[in-house]
Amino acid sequence: MTSPIAFTGHDLDRDDHARADPEQLAALRARDDARLVALDGVMPRFDESGLLFTDLSGIGDDAELVYLGLRDGAPLFVAVPTEGDLRPAITMRETMMALIQLPATEVALFGGARSIADWHARHRFCAQCGGPTKIAKGGWQRGCTACEAQHFPRVDPVAIMLVEHEGSLLVGRGLGWPERSYSALAGFIEPGESIEEGVKREVWEEVGVRVRDVSYIASQPWPFPSQLMIGCHGFADSRDLTIDETEIDDAQWFTRAQIEDAMVNGKDAQSFIPPPRTAIAHYLLQHWLEKTA
Amino acid sequence: MTSPIAFTGHDLDRDDHARADPEQLAALRARDDARLVALDGVMPRFDESGLLFTDLSGIGDDAELVYLGLRDGAPLFVAVPTEGDLRPAITMRETMMALIQLPATEVALFGGARSIADWHARHRFCAQCGGPTKIAKGGWQRGCTACEAQHFPRVDPVAIMLVEHEGSLLVGRGLGWPERSYSALAGFIEPGESIEEGVKREVWEEVGVRVRDVSYIASQPWPFPSQLMIGCHGFADSRDLTIDETEIDDAQWFTRAQIEDAMVNGKDAQSFIPPPRTAIAHYLLQHWLEKTA
Repeated sequence: MTSPIAFTGHDLDRDDHARADPEQLAALRARDDARLVALDGVMPRFDESGLLFTDLSGIGDDAELVYLGLRDGAPLFVAVPTEGDLRPAITMRETMMALIQLPATEVALFGGARSIADWHARHRFCAQCGGPTKIAKGGWQRGCTACEAQHFPRVDPVAIMLVEHEGSLLVGRGLGWPERSYSALAGFIEPGESIEEGVKREVWEEVGVRVRDVSYIASQPWPFPSQLMIGCHGFADSRDLTIDETEIDDAQWFTRAQIEDAMVNGKDAQSFIPPPRTAIAHYLLQHWLEKTA
Repeated sequence: MTSPIAFTGHDLDRDDHARADPEQLAALRARDDARLVALDGVMPRFDESGLLFTDLSGIGDDAELVYLGLRDGAPLFVAVPTEGDLRPAITMRETMMALIQLPATEVALFGGARSIADWHARHRFCAQCGGPTKIAKGGWQRGCTACEAQHFPRVDPVAIMLVEHEGSLLVGRGLGWPERSYSALAGFIEPGESIEEGVKREVWEEVGVRVRDVSYIASQPWPFPSQLMIGCHGFADSRDLTIDETEIDDAQWFTRAQIEDAMVNGKDAQSFIPPPRTAIAHYLLQHWLEKTA
């Protein structure tokens, strides 16, 4: 069975009705059981049992807090990091190693908290007029204090796809990736195109292959900083590659046996090193192996 | 057969390699066959044959132009509207009436041009530091002239869904919609959730119905201003509705016969007035009728 997709499966009641009600928000913040997802910049902090949560005793009334919702009935917040806080002591690699030890619900909770905290930290000014913005609607909006424009959290859709030809799959290496590592091709969906059109354009741009019969497989919120990964599959009519070396380092077709080797043996595989378990590409490859078994 | 989805099917070669090359961009702009999608603010302009295109003779060297790509080999641009230009003479309704007369390729071309032109017009300042931004990478980026932050065009993923229970579908009315009009429920995907989780949350928030077995149907770029509509289907176990009147005016279950009546008879239907042909909700309903025929 394919394992669940990392960063999905949060167990929050997002309790959206409270967002628009300042009195209710203040009451939630004042509750004894209110908790804060503790962050180091926008990276997680841990204690012996998992993600670190703190009470709100050290938080000033004017601190910008995002109301994430209710968890087991208790209100949960995340604080918008102040400008000096964005460089955490923990590395991305350490973060990922620690996260994969946690239950899926905590991984997903951290992901959502990180994305929205990061968005606030990077949107202290109004893109329309340059004026200062302030938090609104419990952190699900910012408002410009000068022109009154409303700004909403950003989620960037990305198409990520397995391309198949006669039982083999096309995977690629990003620039600067560790040796022998390959994963699914991917790229941001642009204004004016559907998911399926984005898939076709990206594959054409990166490797010069025409893709048809695109289908959707699964999706994942990716919190670095806030992508929506949209996992797809498509068929190619040819294996000829014209690699765009400004975008990727390499791309290759691998047989089903080679992909199985990678997924079973990981870093010890003969064929290539597969994407990490936290990536939706890992899920897509596993899903494909099971479907074609 | 279901008709194509409006705003998909553009016939541009987006020619992304030129975006990062200022000399190539300048050469494209100087070509005799270069054309501009003429806009009124960010609404379309028409001539007798469809969308109005103009040459670049009236365009100053310092005008912000987005390079949309090659159309039939000719370079196509759209100009970022200046601040005074955002209030067009044409209404949304007039725009839609005119657009649906055009070939799908022109509708899609307008949609993409509008989304990106609008994004530029609303992002003249840096959200990180408040400094002025300027166009970069042929219009597929803006750069802050103060802190050098890079900003990318925004596309907001929205989940839109048909909810089914024993052969009936649940549809709703937005606040202020024309009388008797119903369409698929929809809402923005939030940070920290997958498409499937977004579908379930939105339906729960808007009508208090739990949805399971969510599947993906189709997608659409929606250019008002720049959503990616992600069309889904899910099943409900109960028809009990608890309507959130701050979000929607009403929601109702309709039988297959009532939905067929709406889709066949439009404004003259006994049951309800269906979504317009330009909306992906129209496609989703038609697709469902065909699938369940």
